[in-house]
Amino acid sequence: MSNRYNDKSWQDKMRIQIDLNYMFEKYIGSKHGIKEKEVNELKDNVKKADQNIKKQYKAGKLGFIDLLVGQKDITQDIMSFAEKNKGKFDNFVILGIGGSALGSIALQTALKDPYHNLKSSAYPRIFVADNVDPVRFKSLLNTLDLKKTVFNVISKSGSTAETMSLFMIAKKTVSEAVGEDKISEHFIATTSKNSGYLRTIAKRENFKMFYIPDNVGGRFSVLTPVGLLYAAFVGIDIKELLAGATYMKEICSNSNLWENPAYLQGALQYLAYKKGKQISVMMPYSDQLKDIADWYRQLWAESLGKEKDREGKLTNVGPTPIKALGATDQHSQAQLYMEGPYDKVITFIEVKDLSVDLKIPEIYQDIEGVSYLGNKSLKRLIDTEKKATELALLKRQRINNTIIVPKINEFTVGQLFYLLELETALVGELFNINAFNQPGVELGKNYTYGVFGREGYQDMKKEFDLRPEKKDKYII
Amino acid sequence: MSNRYNDKSWQDKMRIQIDLNYMFEKYIGSKHGIKEKEVNELKDNVKKADQNIKKQYKAGKLGFIDLLVGQKDITQDIMSFAEKNKGKFDNFVILGIGGSALGSIALQTALKDPYHNLKSSAYPRIFVADNVDPVRFKSLLNTLDLKKTVFNVISKSGSTAETMSLFMIAKKTVSEAVGEDKISEHFIATTSKNSGYLRTIAKRENFKMFYIPDNVGGRFSVLTPVGLLYAAFVGIDIKELLAGATYMKEICSNSNLWENPAYLQGALQYLAYKKGKQISVMMPYSDQLKDIADWYRQLWAESLGKEKDREGKLTNVGPTPIKALGATDQHSQAQLYMEGPYDKVITFIEVKDLSVDLKIPEIYQDIEGVSYLGNKSLKRLIDTEKKATELALLKRQRINNTIIVPKINEFTVGQLFYLLELETALVGELFNINAFNQPGVELGKNYTYGVFGREGYQDMKKEFDLRPEKKDKYII
Repeated sequence: MSNRYNDKSWQDKMRIQIDLNYMFEKYIGSKHGIKEKEVNELKDNVKKADQNIKKQYKAGKLGFIDLLVGQKDITQDIMSFAEKNKGKFDNFVILGIGGSALGSIALQTALKDPYHNLKSSAYPRIFVADNVDPVRFKSLLNTLDLKKTVFNVISKSGSTAETMSLFMIAKKTVSEAVGEDKISEHFIATTSKNSGYLRTIAKRENFKMFYIPDNVGGRFSVLTPVGLLYAAFVGIDIKELLAGATYMKEICSNSNLWENPAYLQGALQYLAYKKGKQISVMMPYSDQLKDIADWYRQLWAESLGKEKDREGKLTNVGPTPIKALGATDQHSQAQLYMEGPYDKVITFIEVKDLSVDLKIPEIYQDIEGVSYLGNKSLKRLIDTEKKATELALLKRQRINNTIIVPKINEFTVGQLFYLLELETALVGELFNINAFNQPGVELGKNYTYGVFGREGYQDMKKEFDLRPEKKDKYII
Repeated sequence: MSNRYNDKSWQDKMRIQIDLNYMFEKYIGSKHGIKEKEVNELKDNVKKADQNIKKQYKAGKLGFIDLLVGQKDITQDIMSFAEKNKGKFDNFVILGIGGSALGSIALQTALKDPYHNLKSSAYPRIFVADNVDPVRFKSLLNTLDLKKTVFNVISKSGSTAETMSLFMIAKKTVSEAVGEDKISEHFIATTSKNSGYLRTIAKRENFKMFYIPDNVGGRFSVLTPVGLLYAAFVGIDIKELLAGATYMKEICSNSNLWENPAYLQGALQYLAYKKGKQISVMMPYSDQLKDIADWYRQLWAESLGKEKDREGKLTNVGPTPIKALGATDQHSQAQLYMEGPYDKVITFIEVKDLSVDLKIPEIYQDIEGVSYLGNKSLKRLIDTEKKATELALLKRQRINNTIIVPKINEFTVGQLFYLLELETALVGELFNINAFNQPGVELGKNYTYGVFGREGYQDMKKEFDLRPEKKDKYII
């Protein structure tokens, strides 16, 4: 057990922190800033929320909190399977959508080389097919040597129309390429252990199977086999990922609101929303973390966008999450953030140390507009731009805060996942909504089932066919 | 002149239309729908806006409206240069940020194979370096054979810190790889004809130069050399792009609000904003168009997010643009769009015909949850999902509209660019703001200059250094 993540002093050096200074009235002013008093007034609500979360967890509902507990066998299975298949495949393809895709994409962007797929590597190239666009999927199938490709099909229920369609097409195409008898070597199913159509298919086809715990929803599933199998296949240390999450779990078990980063940031996001800042921007100043912001976008939107509260009262609540990227979006979105409506809270992510840096050479020293850049480094530039943007927002009374990541590695990425998941659960409680369902997407799904003639959805087809006729004069 | 885009009947078949039905009260109900009367009451404002746009254009300010006019020599120069260099380079790298990057990315995603960089092709691989993240840029430089790489450096002023830093690093790295004397073969400068630091450098280094008209702002520049040079290099038909834009320009010269798609959609977006729908989502149901939505995100945010109106009155106006992707984001954002606050207007983009399709095989016919998919096509699935989502939104009184694209090709993409640019200009006029500047980003830039010791910015450094000290207790 000589792994760095078992070393307490290394862990503490790698601790993620949140700088919440510029959320407060003291800095932002009374019109848009949050008062300490407001936070303190929320203490009882947070306490109740904390109790609710713990009650649900004890009732076996919030599996995302479990982490390693009960997963040791699974992580071992994942690692041996990945080890066994090392060098066997040139391509690892995820067939999944939403929570079955976003976590793996975030892991890839954060922890693999940005041009991994173009470089030779001991690990397979990585592809995520998360849409039913035929142009993209056909091109993907044509790009890959299918004999050297493994597909991980991810759907808990096996009824996800997009994923199952892609799978059925891939299954036929692969069996034409390798022969029907070899099919089972090219597909893995990640699904429910106890039920569902994908489970039925996987058993029939003799696919290797990994299980998504029934009490973990898609958007909370990155640290289950959904994300971990992919990670292990491409050389990401999944034990360190889980250790990072566990470390953050300990930090966030602190019941003092002012010392619990998930709860304090959640409470401030909630208060910001109540003050009319209904848009929540996440803006990492690091390309590696941009898809963490995209993962968060699903987590936040699906969990917190709800029509009714727990008592069934109409509430139509939900902050709108936005992913942005610094410094790039300073040239796209910053103008709006600086001057537009006071309807946003910005969460930066800042990375203290990067594994590499680049020095800007001292050339063109006679040209004023560029000479000052000479002998500085890119890392210093991106850091300065973040601090400059933060300060400019402050000067305009725009609330903002910063998640500080010491380094980007499995341990810190694991922390980030857990921190944001728990924060989401807390904010759901403060809104008094169920953060773990998504009833609003059923109607659209059901119309699709109806139109496609799925059994039991004839009424939905009727309703679809009776949709109001459009007027030509409104089509121009 | 046998190009298809010169054929009037082909053009009309390729005409983009906007279906605005579900924006209106008749369908959405009086609480959230827009009344025809409200549109008609806006007629005078639109007329005034139209006159203002024309006045500014005549005063030589709105160069984006020009299109082909005065550009014929330029397009010829671009095409000959691309032709001359055909086969010479394996990699074409854009160094640019914001408006110097987003248009080219949108063109690539729309009109090139989604896995172009992984396939052998007569055209170079395509890279856009649009951030100062050292991890990504170092990996890019290591990935490329620099002897077979050409860089297009894009900055009108030559003072864009991000782009110039990347350029300075690339220049040193390339000169180490190919020799200082061969540098000029590997760099192109796209910049102002008359002034700026990049112009000075390019002249000194003997780089091939292309010029951005001084009266075209970055976010409106995709159909200038900024986007066209890249397009020509990778085999996109730039004449057809410009023909598409010109075709849409003719359609949008109609002064009847009800017959001018840019103006009618713009008026409805404006009315939606006034009704509290301050978030504008663009959601193409096509992977190929997803970066058009990203390009639009800059266009909309930078143009319309403004603190003051034209009379200098505080207004803090600006819809917040969001890029989404169907069907993927049905599993990420749709829950919020269906059930959250009534603060959004959704603009779908639907593609009528795709160049390819994939059939879902008729397998697993005994398994109810997937059998209904058999023998359908992916294109039909994505279309049905779009229509299902549209209807589900309607049922929940959520306003939405659809841009209908007959096919994705240069002609329709050209139309889209012009349509959205003109619409943005119109909405800017309705808000009575200057849509063509971005004063809000200056402060942040100036702090960076100050910290980096650029001459003339000492006061900004002082201001930066005097920023309010943070409290430890707010960092947890």
